[in-house]
Amino acid sequence: MAKKIAVLPGDGIGPDIIAEAVKVLNKVEQIFGTSYQFQEYPVGGTAIDQTGEPLPASTLQACLESDAVLLGAVGGPKWDNLPGNKRPEAALLGLRKELGLYANLRPAVVYPSLVGASTLKEEVVSGVDLLVVRELTGGIYFGEHKRTTTESGEEKAIDVLEYTRSEIERIVRLAFELAMKRRKKVTSVDKANIIETSRLWREVVAEVQKDFPEVEVDQQYVDNCAMQLVRNPKQFDVIVTENMFGDILSDEAAMLTGSIGMLASASIGTGNNAMYEPIHGSAPDIAGKNIANPIATILSAAMMLRFSLNQIKEADAIEAAVTSVLEKGLRTGDLASPGQATLSTTEMGAAVIAEL
Amino acid sequence: MAKKIAVLPGDGIGPDIIAEAVKVLNKVEQIFGTSYQFQEYPVGGTAIDQTGEPLPASTLQACLESDAVLLGAVGGPKWDNLPGNKRPEAALLGLRKELGLYANLRPAVVYPSLVGASTLKEEVVSGVDLLVVRELTGGIYFGEHKRTTTESGEEKAIDVLEYTRSEIERIVRLAFELAMKRRKKVTSVDKANIIETSRLWREVVAEVQKDFPEVEVDQQYVDNCAMQLVRNPKQFDVIVTENMFGDILSDEAAMLTGSIGMLASASIGTGNNAMYEPIHGSAPDIAGKNIANPIATILSAAMMLRFSLNQIKEADAIEAAVTSVLEKGLRTGDLASPGQATLSTTEMGAAVIAEL
Ligand SMILES: CC(C)[C@H](C(=O)O)[C@@H](O)C(=O)O
Ligand SMILES: CC(C)[C@H](C(=O)O)[C@@H](O)C(=O)O
Repeated sequence: MAKKIAVLPGDGIGPDIIAEAVKVLNKVEQIFGTSYQFQEYPVGGTAIDQTGEPLPASTLQACLESDAVLLGAVGGPKWDNLPGNKRPEAALLGLRKELGLYANLRPAVVYPSLVGASTLKEEVVSGVDLLVVRELTGGIYFGEHKRTTTESGEEKAIDVLEYTRSEIERIVRLAFELAMKRRKKVTSVDKANIIETSRLWREVVAEVQKDFPEVEVDQQYVDNCAMQLVRNPKQFDVIVTENMFGDILSDEAAMLTGSIGMLASASIGTGNNAMYEPIHGSAPDIAGKNIANPIATILSAAMMLRFSLNQIKEADAIEAAVTSVLEKGLRTGDLASPGQATLSTTEMGAAVIAEL
Repeated sequence: MAKKIAVLPGDGIGPDIIAEAVKVLNKVEQIFGTSYQFQEYPVGGTAIDQTGEPLPASTLQACLESDAVLLGAVGGPKWDNLPGNKRPEAALLGLRKELGLYANLRPAVVYPSLVGASTLKEEVVSGVDLLVVRELTGGIYFGEHKRTTTESGEEKAIDVLEYTRSEIERIVRLAFELAMKRRKKVTSVDKANIIETSRLWREVVAEVQKDFPEVEVDQQYVDNCAMQLVRNPKQFDVIVTENMFGDILSDEAAMLTGSIGMLASASIGTGNNAMYEPIHGSAPDIAGKNIANPIATILSAAMMLRFSLNQIKEADAIEAAVTSVLEKGLRTGDLASPGQATLSTTEMGAAVIAEL
């Protein structure tokens, strides 16, 4: 049976990079005899232009009925002045909530051939291979947000950060399970010296930890973790943390690699819902120019095969193809050294396909 | 009239480094004819051991009556298992609240002679000279923290993030004033695409900005700022942000320099309350061994002269002395390259005094 993939190209370079990922998956079908049924739906600014809504009901419905969602990127200056819940980014929050995507997995990997792209010294980042597991449907993102006035009549804004024990437990447990398949180390990040949700977080980690005696556990305060990522990123295997801290730390970790055009992400939900997308943005300035780097999206498609479709050797093959393309010195503009020849988006897609 | 300085050595290396800062200030008295009256008070773990309280009433009273507070560091494993409000760190929160220390100023400066200490490449960090202005008495630190149960009987933790317009305005205004004395650029950091306090923050920045037409303003989301600090820290002059974001970003910024033993901080309050302390911790493992780097504390004393006592040329003299000590290649252990000779804490203090 063909697997149903909802394809959401989105805005800016989204369509450029998604096209290459789909071509790579078509090639996987030929080689491995798998079968994917791709259906495209509008999301983000493109959907606003077409329907007035960043996440049309028909797009959401299709995502709910698919085996996995592959998303390009959303957003752009054209839609920046719309109210918050009508902006392209609202589609991401809507998808997270409606698909119950509680876990955002963001690997930050330094490829040996790209180690020079980092702003950090080679000896500090070479070999970095960490995974940020970010809680994605709770915390201050989904708590109450309001304006009031104080007793003395002054304007005041309020946001509420909430976590239940079960919300924390499922993400922490997933992090430990993922660590068991990796280097068996979990760094749990919180601010338990200040906030109550972090104290509950720490209690849950202490509980869950008992079920994984082989896993080494480190507890770091979020400020310290922000430092440690710069000081010695190799100390990390799996980092697990709440929504807002994960937003900040996963971006910091990504930038350590110096090549965010390479980084994929998976958002795992309840049931078999899941969404895959590159971590970079929609880069409106280079949209449609056939120069964007499609690798992060191609690697997101590989994560999709691995996590949602259980097609492990197919995922391995895509990842190996990307590695050998890089080792051959092939580079899109974002990765090239000054003076180095660069490939277009479609050329890079073709190069990966040729390696498969 | 002698200026009253409340001296709070605290725990770990606190007493070692504070002693050198006081000696430097004694030398300043001799050279410039200024006069300081130092009074020592217990704080943190030391105060817990002596009185049962991390911030005894007598210590707080002395701080309120002094012209400035000079603090070493608090905390250590000995007191790690006490309940939150009885731990050494509670003294910091108490001092912030009671002295109304609403602004935390944390410069991150890369000294030319120490550029190699950074984990970042020399071309990325050389010349970095930024100032994080962190709101210190509001936000989630001082909102409600509680446990409840959900309707279905599940355990739940809640933290509340609140800001009034005036709390935001005074810190933002201070940041613009400081930028006017520097390179006239303010980067305001928030998460206005998600939280209401950040949307109010942005409105206030837009208002205050009108009074400083010469200042260039950049608005960054906190996740992007965490990236930009790694990608290109030289883009920053003054960064202004709320309490929790400031906690995270100021530590990340400090670590970019690679030499946190060099970094000072000032916490400025209502009236003439102010507290000065190094940004590093109490390093209990090296306490009393005469090997800690006293420079961050000496530079904190210089900030005290500059901001609280309006003794500008005295502050300049201390900072210049530190720079020439470094240029002569003198190093404590934390700054030394492998094989390089190192100075003890007291030797480094004496070296700075000799340069004055
Ligand atoms: C666009 C924004 C709402 C989003 C977030 O904060 O989660 C983004 O930063 C991300 O990390 O996916
Ligand atoms: C010790 C802790 C409460 C404190 C904070 O979070 O403010 C520290 O991290 C700091 O930055 O001064």
